[in-house]
Parts: sequence; structure tokens; C-alpha cells
Amino acid sequence: MEPSQKPQQAPQGARNGTASPLRTVTLAAERPLRLDCGDDLGPFTTAYETYGRLNEAKSNVILVCHALSGDQYLRAPPKEVADRPGWWEPVVGPGKPLDTERYFIVCVNVLGGCMGSTGPKDTNPSTGKPYGLSYPLITVRDMVRAQSLLLESLGIEELFCVIGGSMGGMQALEWPALYPGRVATAVPVASSARHSAQNIAFNEVGRQAIMADPEWHNGDYLLHGTRPVRGLAVARMAAHITYLSELALQRKFGRALQDRTDFTYGFDADFQVESYLRHQGVTFTDRFDANSYLYITRAMDYFDLAAEFGGSLVDAFKKTTTRFCVFSFTSDWLYPTPESREIVRALNAVAANVSFAEIETDKGHDAFLLDEPEFHKTLAGFLAGAARHHGIRAL
Amino acid sequence: MEPSQKPQQAPQGARNGTASPLRTVTLAAERPLRLDCGDDLGPFTTAYETYGRLNEAKSNVILVCHALSGDQYLRAPPKEVADRPGWWEPVVGPGKPLDTERYFIVCVNVLGGCMGSTGPKDTNPSTGKPYGLSYPLITVRDMVRAQSLLLESLGIEELFCVIGGSMGGMQALEWPALYPGRVATAVPVASSARHSAQNIAFNEVGRQAIMADPEWHNGDYLLHGTRPVRGLAVARMAAHITYLSELALQRKFGRALQDRTDFTYGFDADFQVESYLRHQGVTFTDRFDANSYLYITRAMDYFDLAAEFGGSLVDAFKKTTTRFCVFSFTSDWLYPTPESREIVRALNAVAANVSFAEIETDKGHDAFLLDEPEFHKTLAGFLAGAARHHGIRAL
Repeated sequence: MEPSQKPQQAPQGARNGTASPLRTVTLAAERPLRLDCGDDLGPFTTAYETYGRLNEAKSNVILVCHALSGDQYLRAPPKEVADRPGWWEPVVGPGKPLDTERYFIVCVNVLGGCMGSTGPKDTNPSTGKPYGLSYPLITVRDMVRAQSLLLESLGIEELFCVIGGSMGGMQALEWPALYPGRVATAVPVASSARHSAQNIAFNEVGRQAIMADPEWHNGDYLLHGTRPVRGLAVARMAAHITYLSELALQRKFGRALQDRTDFTYGFDADFQVESYLRHQGVTFTDRFDANSYLYITRAMDYFDLAAEFGGSLVDAFKKTTTRFCVFSFTSDWLYPTPESREIVRALNAVAANVSFAEIETDKGHDAFLLDEPEFHKTLAGFLAGAARHHGIRAL
Repeated sequence: MEPSQKPQQAPQGARNGTASPLRTVTLAAERPLRLDCGDDLGPFTTAYETYGRLNEAKSNVILVCHALSGDQYLRAPPKEVADRPGWWEPVVGPGKPLDTERYFIVCVNVLGGCMGSTGPKDTNPSTGKPYGLSYPLITVRDMVRAQSLLLESLGIEELFCVIGGSMGGMQALEWPALYPGRVATAVPVASSARHSAQNIAFNEVGRQAIMADPEWHNGDYLLHGTRPVRGLAVARMAAHITYLSELALQRKFGRALQDRTDFTYGFDADFQVESYLRHQGVTFTDRFDANSYLYITRAMDYFDLAAEFGGSLVDAFKKTTTRFCVFSFTSDWLYPTPESREIVRALNAVAANVSFAEIETDKGHDAFLLDEPEFHKTLAGFLAGAARHHGIRAL
């Protein structure tokens, strides 16, 4: 489903004609983007999707930032891309918190991703071969810089809101810090201002699983006509456990057996939870590129907003004009509530306008993707209030 | 360090002469052991170690049960076996809670293990080749049955105490349930009466990592002259994270870099926590057999003491005469305190003699292996009281 080659000269803001069902734009064609690692990248392709309409004042733009394994499809992608729902159907749509009858919603596949934005599986113009590990290391800040270029190409300067969960929340924090004055509201959900040691550790396990797969070929698997699917599946399985709470796993599966009444006394997937995890691992490899997984997890590891401001998270938000709404979920042990509180404390220290909601749920980190009425109600209320304040009306 | 062949006819209770520095005994030679899976196993070798001296009344025996990656060496093994400390040095020794001047302490390498007891890396007598996956699936109850045979061969019928952490705690629960009247005291530490969905999930990730390694060869790697070390290392890395608390990882490593002052913008082990985890993975493969890892994790998954008694944990302890002391650790998220409380509740329901201590620590599951003065003090007090009650004196 993921074309490894995309036309580099797609017309801005339009779907490519016959070659690809993806909406892409070529950026940094005249001047390359200077990345945090010191490399210059450009021109590069950015794939994105939009929902709703831009109002005349261009004041109703919401940028949604996706997480590690997400993409630009908040709602179902075109059938030619994939036959599945979007990842934020409960939140984005007419009458939903991110109301498509009110806001112009943009979501961008991150730089280094594998759903149309230039990443390690694409052709390195200097060699004519897939980048593999010759793709430069990107950071969360680089992702945000690329998003800014995309918005610029759409004629958009200011954001009514930037919002995202998990790694998307890191971008939602980076935006107002990097571009003060351009962001009216920011909503980091189930996220953190810096990646914890435990989360670096889990990411490293995933990377080691991929790199241990002999089909990885030091990142050059496309040249070898193969893919490290087994390693990628193990990486996804390990990560997936961290997205759920222990209680959710217990409630959903417990020790229930899968299509059998007794143990097989072997290594089949006797338990439902094993069968579920294996399924998660295998289906992920159908839609995700292993090198993109390495690059994006690394970007998360490197994220430490305070470090970008001389070690002070407070300084990241000095004189911010952005209004923040921070969300955490009680059973999220990947980005537990204290990490959100740290963000709130820093914002309080600069007397920023910040509200904070810890949502009671047993669904773990994944709660931000799921049907969580309290989260949705609070988010809708925050956005509606801010929209009134900014004179944004239904389209 | 691990001999894959051991003499099957070692004299009972004695170290093998020149062939092996391991203390082993051949069991089930006359009558094979009927395993839970329905297979018969025997004769088989059991490797064990003892500390202290058996008193005349044979009333001072403490059986220590080891965890997944443990072995019989509570204190440093003979140099010819391995040059490292024992895994329970802080607990076992003269004047320590498991006082070698008072008790006769026995520790047995579990059936299916790889430190001398018959396991999948040993020769299947019916084929003359290493068992691999033809080794029968063993359960925690099978491990306990094998321990009982070993003790019988040493002339020991009754235990003053059975104690263990993690999977060792499962055995410490299984003992009084399977052999009521033979166990004076039982001390399950950081354990559970049944493996949770989350723990099954983590074990499954480890197994998939091993089985995804092409060097695994469907379990027949010894026949291929190789070992799935990369898969086993990934399995160990994933598991190792679960042994520590988030706070311990944060305190120990945080986001500190390893031997560098800035990011490499690549996939080296930039962070100390990555370097540490990689080291844990690699060193583990030097001392552990991948198939044993599969078998022992499966035994843990299958453990559900209530299921062995018609679904009732209470029935497992009906009329028990054993005195219990249950320990949990506040920051252990692998076997969190509520799982210990479930054991205590079942014991209370049969009016058993049970005390329970939740130890305050930030060291996570591994706390049971580490220097935890409150744990050691409470354990020593419980054992000393019970010893007085049973008339056990210093040797």
C-alpha cells in the first residue's frame, strides 16, 4: 500500500493525478532544511491530509500531530491507500471535538515517516538508491520545522491549535516553543516534555529486535529485495504492551485461552493475549517501514524540550502567548501523569494560561485514541471556548 | 560454562569427580516422572547445591526455589562453573536471614533449566540428539515434583521452609498445596498465584524474539552448531526492563549519555540506559540456553494455582498446616502488591497462619535480589520465630 517512489513534483496542495492517491507537496526545493543533526535535507516530499475548510481569515487551522505509528489519516484514507478507519475517528468529524464544520484540520505525515513523506525507504538522490541508514537522523523539532514549511506552502502562518497524543504531544509542545506567537492554543495529550529512561529502554528493545533480524541488512533491505518483518513484529509486540494498562489486558483477555479448552503444552498461542499480540505484530509489518520505526523512535528518545532551552523547561515557554490544555490518563504508565504535571508546573512558572485534566480510565496510554467521553467533552469545551475568544464560527 | 553433557550416573549427593564441577543426582531411574503434559520423563539429572549442615532430626531444611534466570548457586559457584557471585548473597550466609549456621539450605536447578538439570539442551536418549523442542513441556508443579524426588534422594521428607522470589515464589506456593503436611513454613516473595495477562504478554515477546532468530532453527540450533544469541539477547532486554521500576531507571540512568557529551545522531548506544540494556542482553546469552528460556517462561505462563484446585485458590490451601509469610515490594509492577494480597486473602479464608509484608522500595521487582534491609530483617524475624517454635538451634 505504500508506494516507495513518489513523484517529486506534485502540484502543491493537490492529490497526485494517476501515480499516487496520496496528497503530497515538495518542500525545501529552493533552500534545503537545516536539520538538528547538521545535515541539509531538500527538496523533500511531505504527505498530508486536510479536513474541513479554511476560513477567509485563515484563523481556524488546527494542526494534528500523529504518534510513532500514526499517519496523516485522521479519518479513513482513500481506499487505494488502505482499507481501514482513520486513527482519530472518535475525535475528528462533524460535531466532534475537532469539528470539521468549524475548523480546517491539517495532519502531516512526519518527516522520516513511511506514508508519503520522505523517509529512509525513499530514494537518496545522491546515490539513486533507497536511503536506508544514509537518511539523516531527524528530531521532533525537525518534524515541526517541516510542518511549518508545509503550512507555509498552503499559505498558512498561524495556528488556532496544535494538538497531538504521545509523540504528537511532543510536537504540540515544540510548536509554541519554537514558533512563539504563531500558536493560539496547544493541546499535548498523554505526552511528556522529555522521553524517560524507561521509554528510551523500550524503544531500544524494539530497535534491537529489528537490527537483530538478518533481513535488515544494516538498513539496506530494499536493495536486497526483502524486509525485516520478524524483527519489526517483535518490536511492535513489545511496544504494544506498553500502550495498554495491566488492568485493560486483564479485563480484555485475562488468562482466557484462544480457540481451545486446554493447554497445548507447547509454544502455540494458547492464550488469547498471545494471539492478539502476534496479530498486532504481523499486521503492523504490512503498513510500516522498519527503518522509519528506527528513525522515529530515535527522534522520541532525543526529545527533551528543556535541553533545547539551556536545560530549563520554563525558558521554553517564557513570554508564551499560547493557551495550553494538558491531558493525561490515570492508567497510562508510558507517559504517566507526573510527566504532564511537570509541563503544567513549567507553564505555571511563567504565568501561562494553562488548564490540566487527568482523565480517569483503565485503558492505558491508548486511551487518547479511544472512546473516552470525558476526554472528548473536556477537549471540545476547551476548543469551543478558545474559538469563541478568537471569533471562529461554524463554516 | 554449561556442560551440555553430564554423566547420568553420578553418585547421589556427591560432586562428579573429574567430568563436571556440578553437584548432580540421577532421579526417576526406576520409575519415570509423570509430567502435567502427560509425558513420562526419567531418568533425568537434577543439579543442586547445599549450604550449611543437616541437623540430626533433619528438621532444619530450607528449600530455596530460583526464578526464571536463576540457578542453584545462592552463593558463588565453583570457579570452574562460573566466576561470579551467587544470586542471593545478601540473604544466604552465616548470620544472614537464611543463616547457614542454623539451617541446611538446598537449592535445585529447575527441571528444564540449563545449569545441570536435564533440559532441552541435553541429549534425548531416544534419539541420541539434543532434545530441542522434543523436550516435554514442564510446569511449575513438575519442577516441584522433581525437587521432591531430589530431597527424597537426600533422605529428606519435610521442609522447615520453602522460599523463593518471582517464579521461585510460585514454587513456594505450589509446595504446601501439592504436599500438605510436609512444609512447616512457606515464603513467596514478589510473586503471584497465577501469571497475569501482561506477564504472559511480556514472556511471549521474549519467545517470539528467540523464535524469530533464524539461528534458532526450530529449536535444533545445537545440531546446526549455532545459537540464537541475538534473539535471546532481545528477550532478556525486554524482560530486564520489567524487573526494574521506572523510578529506579530514572535514578540510575535518567537521560545521561554514555561516554559522550552530545548525541551521535545515529543508532549507537548514546544513552547509558541503552548501553546497560545491551550489556544485560549480551552477557545473558553467555550463561543461558535459549530453549530453556522458552520452556521456563511457558511454565510461568501456565501457572495458575487456583486452576489446579478446581478454580479455587482457597481450596489449594484447605486444611493447610503451613505458616506463610508473603512479601511484596511497592514498586514491583511485574508482580504488584494486589497479587500478593490475593494470596493472603485466600489464606485468611482458610484461617491459615499468614503474615504479609509490603516492603517500601523504589527498586522494582529485582528488590528481592538486592540489599533491602527491611525485607531481610522481617524475613530473619519470621524464620527465627518459626525455628524457635520448631526447636531448631544453631548447628
